[in-house]
Amino acid sequence: MIDSNYKIVCLAGGVGGAKLADGLAQIVPPENLTIIVNTGDDFAHLGLTICPDLDTVLYRLAGVANEATGWGRAGESWRVMAEVARLDGPDWFRLGDLDLATHLLRTHLLGEGESLTAVTRHLCRQFNIQPTVLPMSNQPAPTMIESNGRIYPFQEWFVREQWQPPVSRIILPDDVRAPAAVSLALEQAHIVVIAPSNPFVSIDPILNVYPIREMVMDMPRAVVAVSPIVGGTAVKGPAAKMMQEMGLEVSPTAVAQHYGDLLDGFVYDQQDKGQMDDAAIPTLSTNSMMYNQVDRRQLAQNVLDFATQLL
Amino acid sequence: MIDSNYKIVCLAGGVGGAKLADGLAQIVPPENLTIIVNTGDDFAHLGLTICPDLDTVLYRLAGVANEATGWGRAGESWRVMAEVARLDGPDWFRLGDLDLATHLLRTHLLGEGESLTAVTRHLCRQFNIQPTVLPMSNQPAPTMIESNGRIYPFQEWFVREQWQPPVSRIILPDDVRAPAAVSLALEQAHIVVIAPSNPFVSIDPILNVYPIREMVMDMPRAVVAVSPIVGGTAVKGPAAKMMQEMGLEVSPTAVAQHYGDLLDGFVYDQQDKGQMDDAAIPTLSTNSMMYNQVDRRQLAQNVLDFATQLL
Repeated sequence: MIDSNYKIVCLAGGVGGAKLADGLAQIVPPENLTIIVNTGDDFAHLGLTICPDLDTVLYRLAGVANEATGWGRAGESWRVMAEVARLDGPDWFRLGDLDLATHLLRTHLLGEGESLTAVTRHLCRQFNIQPTVLPMSNQPAPTMIESNGRIYPFQEWFVREQWQPPVSRIILPDDVRAPAAVSLALEQAHIVVIAPSNPFVSIDPILNVYPIREMVMDMPRAVVAVSPIVGGTAVKGPAAKMMQEMGLEVSPTAVAQHYGDLLDGFVYDQQDKGQMDDAAIPTLSTNSMMYNQVDRRQLAQNVLDFATQLL
Repeated sequence: MIDSNYKIVCLAGGVGGAKLADGLAQIVPPENLTIIVNTGDDFAHLGLTICPDLDTVLYRLAGVANEATGWGRAGESWRVMAEVARLDGPDWFRLGDLDLATHLLRTHLLGEGESLTAVTRHLCRQFNIQPTVLPMSNQPAPTMIESNGRIYPFQEWFVREQWQPPVSRIILPDDVRAPAAVSLALEQAHIVVIAPSNPFVSIDPILNVYPIREMVMDMPRAVVAVSPIVGGTAVKGPAAKMMQEMGLEVSPTAVAQHYGDLLDGFVYDQQDKGQMDDAAIPTLSTNSMMYNQVDRRQLAQNVLDFATQLL
């Protein structure tokens, strides 16, 4: 554990966010660590409310994540989904049997009138997760993708279309507000870590929730982002492809520029060392590839050491 | 197959209804057989729309029913539900993995705007079921049970409380209407068979849907019911207990009296032979216990032969 009472907030999307959250959870006392998770790619499917990024973070922190995919549960089985497919139901979004239990329980509790924050707390308790995990909002805040004049709900673009339709615009909702617990965590945070998640469809949706961007911006302490772009491509997912389609350079520098004034420091991979020597803000070049638990812990430690120097 | 063009409608609840429906399906050409199924015990659970009687009938006609229980699927597994329980979710209504696929698909299709009739048609096609199976209504028509001044949604009384709270009143909804397909089937029917289902919570909810009772009553042809009461008790479920609590005799005669003018004939078990010799309507005493497919076919044959004589 780091020897400090610094309160840490991590903004996280799915796989990459979950990995850095796990690294942080290994070294930050749980009462000092809050993970705020993107819910922009949540959707209703087969009658269930599905929160892919929240579940990826929860399963990772619970130690039940599928190591091979980064999402879903270890030891998963697919009996229900095979039968849905046999009955000619929609099977483009694959829901494992263990994973389904989470969606059924969440949908049940939401139906009982519980907030997504309360449901997430329930799941953390059941999975014995110590840090605080919070959805960015209790309201639906769907991210939409515009491509070739058509507007896709996020998961239809991301999973069903395998993020192939070129992105011309990312549409984030207006008037979404953060739960009180999110505002409180940001108010008390000394360090905000922006995980190496997709800046456009994982982190921007979080920052879009009022007043998260405003609070991160106004905070007097350190805000540090980790680049999801390494060696000219995205470690996982569509970030690089999206940057090309939006006319951006696919580089850590472009990611840092996207976040702009929000940042007090920026962490990028050692493969790209030297690329940001002229950056206007402090940077750290280090190994950011998180293949295992030791990598995750080490990156978290390096990020926090770097951020602590900025305080 | 029976050598006739008689069109047969069967009113069915769950296990007993499904068994007689299966017997009828063995001998009636599929284009001449329509099963109208109780949906009064349908409910929303864990976000899913669950139709227990429809599923019992479908699984039986599809040949995938659990022979031991009479409900649910053969070869069922319980991985999802075990995980829901582990996460401290509600597990009083046990949903098997294969069964869940039906509920997910149904909930999905209803969410797409399909009627329950259309969803049932889709399931029949996927399960290769030839006769027509129809829900009594496309509208929600929840049966409620009043007990000790408390009102229970049906499944909470039936499954969660294991039908132990004494029944003081059965509350059926007002203003529920039958789909056009139900009215058409009744209009064309030569014979209506009321299955040996619970008269109060399986058959009455069907008759309560406008204009089913009126059409069954006004039909010039044969309406025949099969007693679910055999040897002073119910073959399955709470019918006998309910009759006692409502101050009725637990006998085939009391069942026939309950249906009253609706009936043109009544079938009861050979165990009770002689009990209805003084009945005001024609009766048939025969083996009504359906332990296997041969029993089911034989009872169906006997019921139709009896009904045909009444035409």
